[in-house]
Amino acid sequence: MKILVLNCGSSSVKYKLFDMATKQILGQGGAEKVGMKGSFIKHTTSTGEKVMIEGEILEHTNAIEYILGILISPKYGCLKSLEEIDAVGHRVVHGGERFNASVRITQEVKTQIEQCIQMAPLHNPPNLSGIEAIELLIPNVPQVAVFDTAFHQTMPKHAYIYGIPYSLYKKHGVRRYGFHGTSHRYVSKRVCEFLGVDIQSQKIITCHIGNGGSITAIRNGESVDTSMGFTPLEGLLMGTRCGDLDPGVIQFLMDKEMIGTMSVSSLLNKYSGVLGVSGISSDMRDLETAAISGDKRAILALKIYSYRIKKYIGAYAAALGGVDIVLFTGGVGENQISMRAQICEGLEYMGLEVDLERNKVQGQEALISKDSSRVKVVVIPTDEEFMIASDTEEIVSK
Amino acid sequence: MKILVLNCGSSSVKYKLFDMATKQILGQGGAEKVGMKGSFIKHTTSTGEKVMIEGEILEHTNAIEYILGILISPKYGCLKSLEEIDAVGHRVVHGGERFNASVRITQEVKTQIEQCIQMAPLHNPPNLSGIEAIELLIPNVPQVAVFDTAFHQTMPKHAYIYGIPYSLYKKHGVRRYGFHGTSHRYVSKRVCEFLGVDIQSQKIITCHIGNGGSITAIRNGESVDTSMGFTPLEGLLMGTRCGDLDPGVIQFLMDKEMIGTMSVSSLLNKYSGVLGVSGISSDMRDLETAAISGDKRAILALKIYSYRIKKYIGAYAAALGGVDIVLFTGGVGENQISMRAQICEGLEYMGLEVDLERNKVQGQEALISKDSSRVKVVVIPTDEEFMIASDTEEIVSK
Repeated sequence: MKILVLNCGSSSVKYKLFDMATKQILGQGGAEKVGMKGSFIKHTTSTGEKVMIEGEILEHTNAIEYILGILISPKYGCLKSLEEIDAVGHRVVHGGERFNASVRITQEVKTQIEQCIQMAPLHNPPNLSGIEAIELLIPNVPQVAVFDTAFHQTMPKHAYIYGIPYSLYKKHGVRRYGFHGTSHRYVSKRVCEFLGVDIQSQKIITCHIGNGGSITAIRNGESVDTSMGFTPLEGLLMGTRCGDLDPGVIQFLMDKEMIGTMSVSSLLNKYSGVLGVSGISSDMRDLETAAISGDKRAILALKIYSYRIKKYIGAYAAALGGVDIVLFTGGVGENQISMRAQICEGLEYMGLEVDLERNKVQGQEALISKDSSRVKVVVIPTDEEFMIASDTEEIVSK
Repeated sequence: MKILVLNCGSSSVKYKLFDMATKQILGQGGAEKVGMKGSFIKHTTSTGEKVMIEGEILEHTNAIEYILGILISPKYGCLKSLEEIDAVGHRVVHGGERFNASVRITQEVKTQIEQCIQMAPLHNPPNLSGIEAIELLIPNVPQVAVFDTAFHQTMPKHAYIYGIPYSLYKKHGVRRYGFHGTSHRYVSKRVCEFLGVDIQSQKIITCHIGNGGSITAIRNGESVDTSMGFTPLEGLLMGTRCGDLDPGVIQFLMDKEMIGTMSVSSLLNKYSGVLGVSGISSDMRDLETAAISGDKRAILALKIYSYRIKKYIGAYAAALGGVDIVLFTGGVGENQISMRAQICEGLEYMGLEVDLERNKVQGQEALISKDSSRVKVVVIPTDEEFMIASDTEEIVSK
């Protein structure tokens, strides 16, 4: 079965075409700057050849038309005709309380995704555009929606209800939803295969940390708490997002700086995080370089970044009543050796001992705790697209 | 030495007169509804006799004049003349970064307290009014300011800097300050005396929980992190305060409900917390009663309340690299047996085992962990007024 995975953002369309029988990637890439000046598509063939195709890409249907064209082009393509695509899987950011699993897309599902727009105004509209573009361009191909929020729908009420009037939950759906669910689900399953343990008996803390980041507490394979909330702003310090913040700060800043909700949202989403603290960059690699050369605010940003993660691991260990596996994934989690070491330092009291030699791995599956460590510490590279493809295969095969 | 302790709120003045030699309370009480209709003073004599004196109390100087009058009244008083008062100690809420300890009040100190008004607009002005009323009514008596924030000034930078642009810290002092410092300092010292251990070698988590609430991580007698932040809104679920909340929720609510910063602040400070979740009451005793009769939202509110505290204990255990003492104080911490049990459930992984029989104590100092528990769990009633009095005595005796 050949499955096309699409991830449509507000100005980008990322794609990966899988041959599920061989688990091979036949082609992948992304359209960037969609609807802006200087739009282009970067494409990588199954043999690793990279091409860049410039051109005016006005909106998502355009972008997907281009992408499908590349996939069937004799020069860079991998398909003889679009009919070879058996199904399309879409990443959809917000499924609200309606979706606790991936679903085949119907008119009703589209309506429900539309109803979640108020909670993800930047993400759900392009996700829907992608679905509709496929309907137009390859009619009748089965489509599946895989939600970022679905995995977290198992959270108990005391973990997802905020301390605000309950009526705001009933009226507007204000509650913790959590994001990165596809990643947390994938790595938590994968780590149990890797360690040869039964997920039904494990308490797992998955740290998906990169430019965005979230941590999830998983019991018996189910998410029971997660650090992102109603929006992806809550929780960890991120590249440009503030993470946890005294709610009183927002009123203070709005009054002091005389700014409205749009500006404060932009401040907290785009100019905060490690960028805001360091004043240097939102990229953790730049910060590591600056920190090595002694930059005090870069050192501070890295310290806050690791300290927050450490505290979440502690909090979720308490929530789970102890932990069996702590897992790192995402750009930083998979690659930043010193960051993993910093995070784990001092967690021996909960039975967690990192082996600093084993920790010297990047981008590969590895056990990095000592043999004597009661808590297994593991690196698992995430693969959200493969998870979307395999959900799609499962659903269309039914 | 006779020391008068004053705690001036926006519409109240609480007082306690201590004889430091005997540690006796000579008189105590409070003026309520200051500046409002129906103002009155409740006074309790050293023998426990309670009196209520009604009268129009227009502002803080009025209130303090009344209070001093009662203290020297032949009928309810305990002093022959105001000259017997050797010093006055004031609770001052916000000392910013200027004060890391209690200080004798001078003109300069008053100016600095004034400069902190922007960070505590509801609290510092009445605190200053109290100081000025004493200057007017008993000139030349030495006065001492004891700050709620001072104890937390030992926090390391990575614990107090938020993930927002660093310039906002430099420009407006936006950072974590923490509150309830006098209580956390008192109980952390007291618990070490109680257990006969040296505070310099202890990792302590103090849970000051009541209608307001905060948790502090203490290493070697110094606060290294605390759950309240720039304002007393952050952290735990409180009586009417929301505690931790996705910052993205605030923008959403302001836009959806078309409300301004004043309204959203009032929503999060006065109509949230256990009151908002339960829809019943901000008083934890009412909630326990409702929960026993099966009210689902009361049960939910209590569960969120305990769950947050449990997560903070976990987070601070990670921050401290393990913990030696977990301490409960405040209205709920001292008295609510079932709440303490709920909080501690499942923390055995960190070496904490509560003894459910020993836990059946209220309002008294007690060890409530099992003998086998590596972490000592202790109840210590707080006494902020006594701490203010003893700081005052120490400073004026220099």
